[in-house]
Amino acid sequence: MNLSTLLITIEVGGTVAFAMSGLIEAMRKRMDVVGVVSVAFVSAFGGGTVRDVLLDRRPLFWTEHEAYVWLVLAMGLTAPLWLSMAMREAGARLMIVADALGLGLFAVSGTSLALSAGMSPLVGVLMGVTTAIVGGVARDVLCNEVPQVYRDHRPYAVCALVGSAVYLGLAALNVGSEWASLAGALVATGSRLLAVALDWRLPSWSPRSPQ
Amino acid sequence: MNLSTLLITIEVGGTVAFAMSGLIEAMRKRMDVVGVVSVAFVSAFGGGTVRDVLLDRRPLFWTEHEAYVWLVLAMGLTAPLWLSMAMREAGARLMIVADALGLGLFAVSGTSLALSAGMSPLVGVLMGVTTAIVGGVARDVLCNEVPQVYRDHRPYAVCALVGSAVYLGLAALNVGSEWASLAGALVATGSRLLAVALDWRLPSWSPRSPQ
Amino acid sequence: MNLSTLLITIEVGGTVAFAMSGLIEAMRKRMDVVGVVSVAFVSAFGGGTVRDVLLDRRPLFWTEHEAYVWLVLAMGLTAPLWLSMAMREAGARLMIVADALGLGLFAVSGTSLALSAGMSPLVGVLMGVTTAIVGGVARDVLCNEVPQVYRDHRPYAVCALVGSAVYLGLAALNVGSEWASLAGALVATGSRLLAVALDWRLPSWSPRSPQ
Repeated sequence: MNLSTLLITIEVGGTVAFAMSGLIEAMRKRMDVVGVVSVAFVSAFGGGTVRDVLLDRRPLFWTEHEAYVWLVLAMGLTAPLWLSMAMREAGARLMIVADALGLGLFAVSGTSLALSAGMSPLVGVLMGVTTAIVGGVARDVLCNEVPQVYRDHRPYAVCALVGSAVYLGLAALNVGSEWASLAGALVATGSRLLAVALDWRLPSWSPRSPQ
Repeated sequence: MNLSTLLITIEVGGTVAFAMSGLIEAMRKRMDVVGVVSVAFVSAFGGGTVRDVLLDRRPLFWTEHEAYVWLVLAMGLTAPLWLSMAMREAGARLMIVADALGLGLFAVSGTSLALSAGMSPLVGVLMGVTTAIVGGVARDVLCNEVPQVYRDHRPYAVCALVGSAVYLGLAALNVGSEWASLAGALVATGSRLLAVALDWRLPSWSPRSPQ
Repeated sequence: MNLSTLLITIEVGGTVAFAMSGLIEAMRKRMDVVGVVSVAFVSAFGGGTVRDVLLDRRPLFWTEHEAYVWLVLAMGLTAPLWLSMAMREAGARLMIVADALGLGLFAVSGTSLALSAGMSPLVGVLMGVTTAIVGGVARDVLCNEVPQVYRDHRPYAVCALVGSAVYLGLAALNVGSEWASLAGALVATGSRLLAVALDWRLPSWSPRSPQ
C-alpha cells in the first residue's frame, strides 16, 4: 500500500465518520432534508476545505475525488432509513467513536498535506488540528450551538495535536510516511477513546473568582 | 445581448434581492447601521465570495464590479427611509419574492462560473446551490439563528438545484448559454414561488422515534 | 523605522490586543483550554486571515511570522494566571482599550495591504474594516452571540473606516507610508476611545414603526 492509497483511505474513513456526526446533530435539531445534507457536507468537508483554502491547494480534495461527494449525499438522503435505530440504540456512543476515527485520520492528513506544501512543523500541527476540528466547529455553528469541542472539557483537539506531533516526530526520524501516518492516527484516535472511557477532563480555564 | 451582459444582469438582480433579505433580517434584530450594512453585504456577496474563493477566482466579483458595493452600501444607508413602509405592508411577501429572484439568478451564475473554471457537472450544481444559499446561511448565522434554509421544510436549495440542472442540461444540448441561463433561473425562481404559493413541504428527515 | 518594521509592529500590537478580547470572551463563556486558545486565535488572526484569503495573499501573515502564533498560544495557555485579576479589576475597561488598539492598527494594515495588492481605494477601506472587525465577529459567532460590533450602537467599524480613509488620504498626498499609517491608526483608535468616553451612539437603523 503506497502513500497516496493510504492517504485516500484515511480521507474516506474520516469523511464518513464526520458526515455521520453532522447527520446526527442536524437530525436532532429536526432540520429538513436540505439542512441534514448540508450539515453533513460541512461536517465532512469543512475541515479539509478550510485547510485547502489556507494552504491555497486546488483543486479542493472533494472536487478531486467526487466519490466523496456522492457518498455523503447518499448518506444524507438515506439517513432516516438506517440512522434511526442506530441513534436509539447507541446514539452517543456511535457519535463518539465516529468522531474519534475522523479526528485521528484528519489530523494526520492535515499535517501531511501542510508539510507537502512546504509549511513548518508548527503550521503542520495547526493544520492537522484545523482539519480535525473545523468541520465539527462549523457543524455546531450552523446548529446554533457553542462548538462542543470548545466547551465539553474533554480532550479532543489535544488528541489531534498529539497525533499530529507523533506523525511529525516519526517522519523526522525517517520512518516511512505510511507508518508515520498510521501511528499518528492511531495515537490520536486511541487517546481520544481512552479519554472518553476514563473520563479525562481538561481544566476549565476560567478565572477562579466568580464572574 | 451577449453572455457576459446577461451574467452581469443576473448578478445585479441577485445582489439587490439578497441585500434586501439581509437588510430586513438585520433590521428585525434591531441592529445598528454597521450591523445592517454588514449583514446586507454578507447576504448579497457571501455566496458569490465563497464560490470565488473555492474556485480560486480572482479578482472577486465585487472587487471587479465596484458598482455592486456602492449599490449595497447605498441600500443599507438609506434603508430606514424606504424599507419601513414596505415591511409594514408586505414584509414577509417581499422577502420571499426577493429571495426567489436571487435564488434563481445566483444558482445559474454559480453553475456557469464553475463550468468555466473546468469543474465537473456535479461540482457545477454544488457551486450553483452554494452561490444561492450561502449568503442567506451566513446572514442567519450572524443574526444568531439556525439557517432558515435548513429548517423551514420548504423547497429552496432544491429549487436552486433544479435550476442548475436545467442550465446544465440545456448547455449540454448546445442551447446557447444566454437561453440556458434564462431558463435555469426561471425554473429555479418559478419553482420556488410555486412551492411557497402551494405550500409544498420537505420531509423533516428526523428519525421517526422520539429522540 | 522603515515601513515593514512599522507594519510588523502594528501587526504585533493588534494581534495581542485582539487575542486578549478573545481570551476574555471565551473565559466568560467558561470554555475549556481548547476553546479559550481557539477563540483567542480566531479573534487575533481571523480578520487578517480573511483579508489574506480575499486578496489571495500567501503565505498567510501568521505562517510567515510564527512568533505571533507562539505568542497567542502562550497567552492562551497562561491566561488564568494573569487575566483573572485584570478581569476582576477592570474587565470591561481593559477590553475596550485592547479592542480600540487592535481596531486602529488592523484597519491601517488591512488598507495598506489591499493597496499593495493593487486594489482600489474603496476595496482598500473595506479590507481595512474587514481586518479590524472580522476577528471580533468570528469570536462572537463562536461564542454563540450576535456580533457585538453589529448591535451595540457604538461607533467601532465606523472608527476603522475613518482611520482607513485618513491613511488613504495622507498616502494620496504623498505623505510617507509610516506617517500615514501612524496617523490613520491614531485617528481610528482615538475616535473609538472618544466615542466610548463620550457615549456616542449610532442610530438603530430599525424602522420607526413597531415590528
